[in-house]
Amino acid sequence: MAQVFTTASACSASNVLSVAGGQRLSASETHKSGAHLRASSSEIWRKCSLFVASGVTSGVKTSGRSAATRFPTATAVKDSPTRPTSLVGESNVSEKKKVMILGGDGYCGWATALHLSKKGHDVAIVDSLVRRLFDEQLGTQTLTPIASLQKRVKRWKDLSGETLDVYIGDICNYEFLEHAVKSFEPDAIVHFGEQRSAPYSMMDRDRAVFTQHNNVIGTLNVLFAIKELVPECHLVKLGTMGEYGTPNIDIEEGFITITHNGRTDTLPYPKQASSFYHLSKVHDSHNLAFACKAWGLAATDLNQGVVYGVHTPETFMDEVLINRLDYDGVFGTALNRFCVQAAVGHPLTVYGKGGQTRGYLDIRDTVRCLELAIINPAKAGEFRVFNQFTEQFSVNDLASLVTKAGRKLGIEVQTAHVENPRVEAEEHYYNAKHSKLVELGLEPHLLSDALLDSLLNVAVNYAERVDYEQILPAVSWKKIGSKPKTVKPSGL
Amino acid sequence: MAQVFTTASACSASNVLSVAGGQRLSASETHKSGAHLRASSSEIWRKCSLFVASGVTSGVKTSGRSAATRFPTATAVKDSPTRPTSLVGESNVSEKKKVMILGGDGYCGWATALHLSKKGHDVAIVDSLVRRLFDEQLGTQTLTPIASLQKRVKRWKDLSGETLDVYIGDICNYEFLEHAVKSFEPDAIVHFGEQRSAPYSMMDRDRAVFTQHNNVIGTLNVLFAIKELVPECHLVKLGTMGEYGTPNIDIEEGFITITHNGRTDTLPYPKQASSFYHLSKVHDSHNLAFACKAWGLAATDLNQGVVYGVHTPETFMDEVLINRLDYDGVFGTALNRFCVQAAVGHPLTVYGKGGQTRGYLDIRDTVRCLELAIINPAKAGEFRVFNQFTEQFSVNDLASLVTKAGRKLGIEVQTAHVENPRVEAEEHYYNAKHSKLVELGLEPHLLSDALLDSLLNVAVNYAERVDYEQILPAVSWKKIGSKPKTVKPSGL
Repeated sequence: MAQVFTTASACSASNVLSVAGGQRLSASETHKSGAHLRASSSEIWRKCSLFVASGVTSGVKTSGRSAATRFPTATAVKDSPTRPTSLVGESNVSEKKKVMILGGDGYCGWATALHLSKKGHDVAIVDSLVRRLFDEQLGTQTLTPIASLQKRVKRWKDLSGETLDVYIGDICNYEFLEHAVKSFEPDAIVHFGEQRSAPYSMMDRDRAVFTQHNNVIGTLNVLFAIKELVPECHLVKLGTMGEYGTPNIDIEEGFITITHNGRTDTLPYPKQASSFYHLSKVHDSHNLAFACKAWGLAATDLNQGVVYGVHTPETFMDEVLINRLDYDGVFGTALNRFCVQAAVGHPLTVYGKGGQTRGYLDIRDTVRCLELAIINPAKAGEFRVFNQFTEQFSVNDLASLVTKAGRKLGIEVQTAHVENPRVEAEEHYYNAKHSKLVELGLEPHLLSDALLDSLLNVAVNYAERVDYEQILPAVSWKKIGSKPKTVKPSGL
Repeated sequence: MAQVFTTASACSASNVLSVAGGQRLSASETHKSGAHLRASSSEIWRKCSLFVASGVTSGVKTSGRSAATRFPTATAVKDSPTRPTSLVGESNVSEKKKVMILGGDGYCGWATALHLSKKGHDVAIVDSLVRRLFDEQLGTQTLTPIASLQKRVKRWKDLSGETLDVYIGDICNYEFLEHAVKSFEPDAIVHFGEQRSAPYSMMDRDRAVFTQHNNVIGTLNVLFAIKELVPECHLVKLGTMGEYGTPNIDIEEGFITITHNGRTDTLPYPKQASSFYHLSKVHDSHNLAFACKAWGLAATDLNQGVVYGVHTPETFMDEVLINRLDYDGVFGTALNRFCVQAAVGHPLTVYGKGGQTRGYLDIRDTVRCLELAIINPAKAGEFRVFNQFTEQFSVNDLASLVTKAGRKLGIEVQTAHVENPRVEAEEHYYNAKHSKLVELGLEPHLLSDALLDSLLNVAVNYAERVDYEQILPAVSWKKIGSKPKTVKPSGL
């Protein structure tokens, strides 16, 4: 199988995408279909700057810096008079890394791939594209019309001049993964390549088993590939804040110092996950900690909160680069779903009492956090954990914020409390630490009316694509059964 | 596939063993080969009583009770003048349970099956027999010559009059498991059905992946089968003390109350497992806790220590019923391996400094603990954890005890410190609680010269079967690679 792959040099500006399974796409072939959307690079960066500027005019401020500083475009970094004097957290030529992104076609993965590519890193995308298959099987689709990975990568090359290597295959297939890693020789592997929906993992036994097998075995393969092939490579693994559950004490970043019967130790923070998906991430965390200890690997576990937002400056450059926006009952996350509901006049569906509190972050912060972790890597043998979110909100808080933002746009937003399909505390203490990424240089985009406007506006722009059948919760934690569940055709 | 199984009534004394995959064995067929070993039931029980009595003559005492009281045979329970007045922990007719034992052909599973059958419970064994395949593939074998499962079950029927239902198949195959559970309708499922060797899980990537897939997915299937088919069924799951690792604070039974920044909660005890096998048990524990919370299942997680010993009164009844005794570098556990080494004049192989301290228990206590958990079940929605061991020893402690016991038998025992193939602390604090099973009625067999004599004597009896090539550690935690490892033929 290995011989069908192109051994791509990550440093070259090759026009050939290396694609597993015998496919190869040249730049000229992938170029054609996206031609009508092409724009000059300078036009695009202007468009991008406008997007950024909208944050400034809305008066969003954090830590006394303007939004333009907090979210610099390539141009802003070079020219902004308010650029930070410290280079902590900023990439430069000497820090250029070869970064392999597992799951690089997904919501977070795609945005991260473009961000790192723009920052000058050599980026390879590894993806089985199975997330697109899930949409086909469930009859769901992203609100935003996403292009094929091949078109996306070609357009990025046209606009930025940067090549994204592409390996299409399943990391549960070790032979495939081995080829990709040998071929690309990454300095860092970013691992988004997992089934990431809690409701999907709770649909039926098949999907529960798929989720845990896919996530745990895929990650085991990654650990073995690093140990065997690139032992210096830094693994940046996406975990979830959901691993911690909702304990009645403060949540620390990965570890907690416990004094018990007169003795003290610092131990992994206890985990109480509440879906087979969240559990799979708990399993991964334990496997990672062991591999770092036993083999001296270097790993960062990013326990990410709920991500919201559509655009990053890069994905906003061209509609072919647009990111996905899921609002359905299986893959949609709370704030994104609320904005789409508001845009089409559907009541916001609050599950249960709505007191469920979680950590949230803007997708622009996701890509920055990944960058910070990569340019400030863990040491050999180190297993470190960062809580990757910027603010805490209850579901009721989110509903209020969307209602308020909707009013500014002239939309009257209603809220409906629906039966909670999950098994979770609906009123609880929640206070999770999240300072480590800030210490590395993260300057958060805070949830604000400006952002809601922007996210709401995207939803309004694509409102004609909304499928009302997808909006309500589709999966009950308690009704999961052993029979494979099929999805009724929309509207039947 | 389901139609090839026999739907056996667990309460019947049917002579037909139900076997998956189209096989059926009648009692008369399995009867033949074991005929030369047959003895009358009364002869056997006498032999068994002698074995028990040996503990008494050696003066082993616990909590002021004699060994005969602590380890009652069927006769002793009925007639002993020192029988406890309380019936806590003792089965009686009204508590008769239908118990399905996953992994019922293994070291702990077989002994447990016979013990529960003798106590009057209806017992079914579910096993894929893959443990026997591992021995074939690794070129290892148990020191004691174990009979086929079919012969074992037939002999038990001959001697006790009790039928053990048998389902041969893989619980990772949900269709098979579903059939077995539907057919037997257990009140309790005892889950020993996992790959249970840390070194096996550290041989190569294939076996690491096999271990985590087999154990995690098998257990997920069991959870789904209970939820769907027998929601009142109590799951008694074997975990391991190795899930906790060696923290610098006391180890509690499953949960720890933590006061942190002025707030208090009781949370799952932090886990620090140190092999892919031990990690698979950590994953199982998290999955179980969730299933109990989300679906209201009742589960007991038995975090078992290292088991030693060969005989229980039941397995000791007849050589066809004899239990396995593993002494090889992959499946052999410390004390059993030391006794075999002592018996053949091989130095005891202490890994590293020998300060590694763990919890240990006699296999006669294993079977009693299982019984106690079953007759005192968890409540619906309850996930409880018991630490199942009776005493703590360091590896050096064990070597000293075996040396001392060997001297009594006229064997001069040497000790050799070999390079530690594992990654673990060799000198550390260790204090693990283990009172919950005692509170339910466990009266431990303590490690003593008498037991060492008995275990050493078994080793001496079968010394001619020892394969010296199997004795040394076979697997290095650090040298594990991605290539499937094959075992050199013995002596090459």
